[in-house]
Amino acid sequence: MNLILLEPEDFQSSSQVVLRGRRFQHMAEVQRAEVGDRLKVGVVNGQVGAGEITERSENHIAMTVSLVAEPPAALPLTLLLALPRPKMLKRTIQHATALGVKKLYLINAYRVEKSYWQSPWLAEEKLREQCVLGLEQAVDTAMPEIQLRKRFKPFVEDELPEIANQSLKLVAHPVTDAPCPVDIEQQTTLAVGPEGGFIPYEVEKLQEAGFQSVHLGPRILRVETALPVLLSRLFPAR
Amino acid sequence: MNLILLEPEDFQSSSQVVLRGRRFQHMAEVQRAEVGDRLKVGVVNGQVGAGEITERSENHIAMTVSLVAEPPAALPLTLLLALPRPKMLKRTIQHATALGVKKLYLINAYRVEKSYWQSPWLAEEKLREQCVLGLEQAVDTAMPEIQLRKRFKPFVEDELPEIANQSLKLVAHPVTDAPCPVDIEQQTTLAVGPEGGFIPYEVEKLQEAGFQSVHLGPRILRVETALPVLLSRLFPAR
Repeated sequence: MNLILLEPEDFQSSSQVVLRGRRFQHMAEVQRAEVGDRLKVGVVNGQVGAGEITERSENHIAMTVSLVAEPPAALPLTLLLALPRPKMLKRTIQHATALGVKKLYLINAYRVEKSYWQSPWLAEEKLREQCVLGLEQAVDTAMPEIQLRKRFKPFVEDELPEIANQSLKLVAHPVTDAPCPVDIEQQTTLAVGPEGGFIPYEVEKLQEAGFQSVHLGPRILRVETALPVLLSRLFPAR
Repeated sequence: MNLILLEPEDFQSSSQVVLRGRRFQHMAEVQRAEVGDRLKVGVVNGQVGAGEITERSENHIAMTVSLVAEPPAALPLTLLLALPRPKMLKRTIQHATALGVKKLYLINAYRVEKSYWQSPWLAEEKLREQCVLGLEQAVDTAMPEIQLRKRFKPFVEDELPEIANQSLKLVAHPVTDAPCPVDIEQQTTLAVGPEGGFIPYEVEKLQEAGFQSVHLGPRILRVETALPVLLSRLFPAR
């Protein structure tokens, strides 16, 4: 928790917040915060700054906060990610959030097992919890928007043209000659397949929608490793 | 398992191998390999190629292998990594291996808890298991060399000058003005701290040894995310 993420309902007044529950416990038990300590804070979808602890009881901490700066810039990116298996889902959402992804579509693909869509971690509030952890890690406040799309073909045919309109359209695919471009400034839509990759039909459908296949070199990486590699190649200066 | 990694003792002759145990089970149960199928293979620290299955019983598979190509290039890098907590250690070794790290020192730091050094996963054969998984993932054969250094100061003062000699020396450290360089070709020694970072004393000792602090932007990333980001900024074309 490199930043304490504040929700509107934490505010007692424009500069006074009271925290209980998970954040209180982390501050009290892990950070051992005391009255007078200053900690980094930020408001969901708002500014970042410092909070000075004015009160600490057995179940809450009160702070006076001063919000002065903008959060880190978002990546100019919409990410289409084949739904990872449940074990990986939480971690992937946290990582993507920490890396600055703000628009994420979790999509279906042939190699996404049907059962993955039953994961309780796909509930809106569960996904938001993972986003909060990613923002707290990366000292960011801008909450990602996550959409679920359980049917590949209608998504790619009917929705994707509008979503990807005017952006550079890339699909990460090991079996291609074109390397992933480095250091682009352009708004980008990036599709990343499941473990085992998109099947040829899916790559074709994406190509029909204007997507260009790019590879990351001879190594085949797990999605959790490929994602930071892809994003830092595309946007190394972010 | 994108590559079946062969050990010298698997060979019955120069082109015949017999596999049992973990690899047999993966090929039989996950890949459902049958006689006649061709799979990607490689020899530890040697070439990669194809293996054709000639025999399959209830507990072994025999293949005729033909080794024709070099594995992916290694990164021109020596990585000094503060020992991660046990839960992260396995994953970090796998990721680093998959990314092409061949020289890895797991080092101590103030924020490395002493108990981490007791982890059974630090045994040589356990570390090697994780490297094998990383190589199988990344279609690589070159086994990383991993060294453990339980004392920070003697390592940095006595050993590091020789290890890092003639290389670009970088320490990943969020609190600095210099961004991590992009796309260098040079042999590099990169130090990455524990969760919470190196303490100022450690950064100073590394600076005395010629290391330059570099940051990855305003976001603070977990080691598992920072590592692929760092390596792909330094070596985007690998």
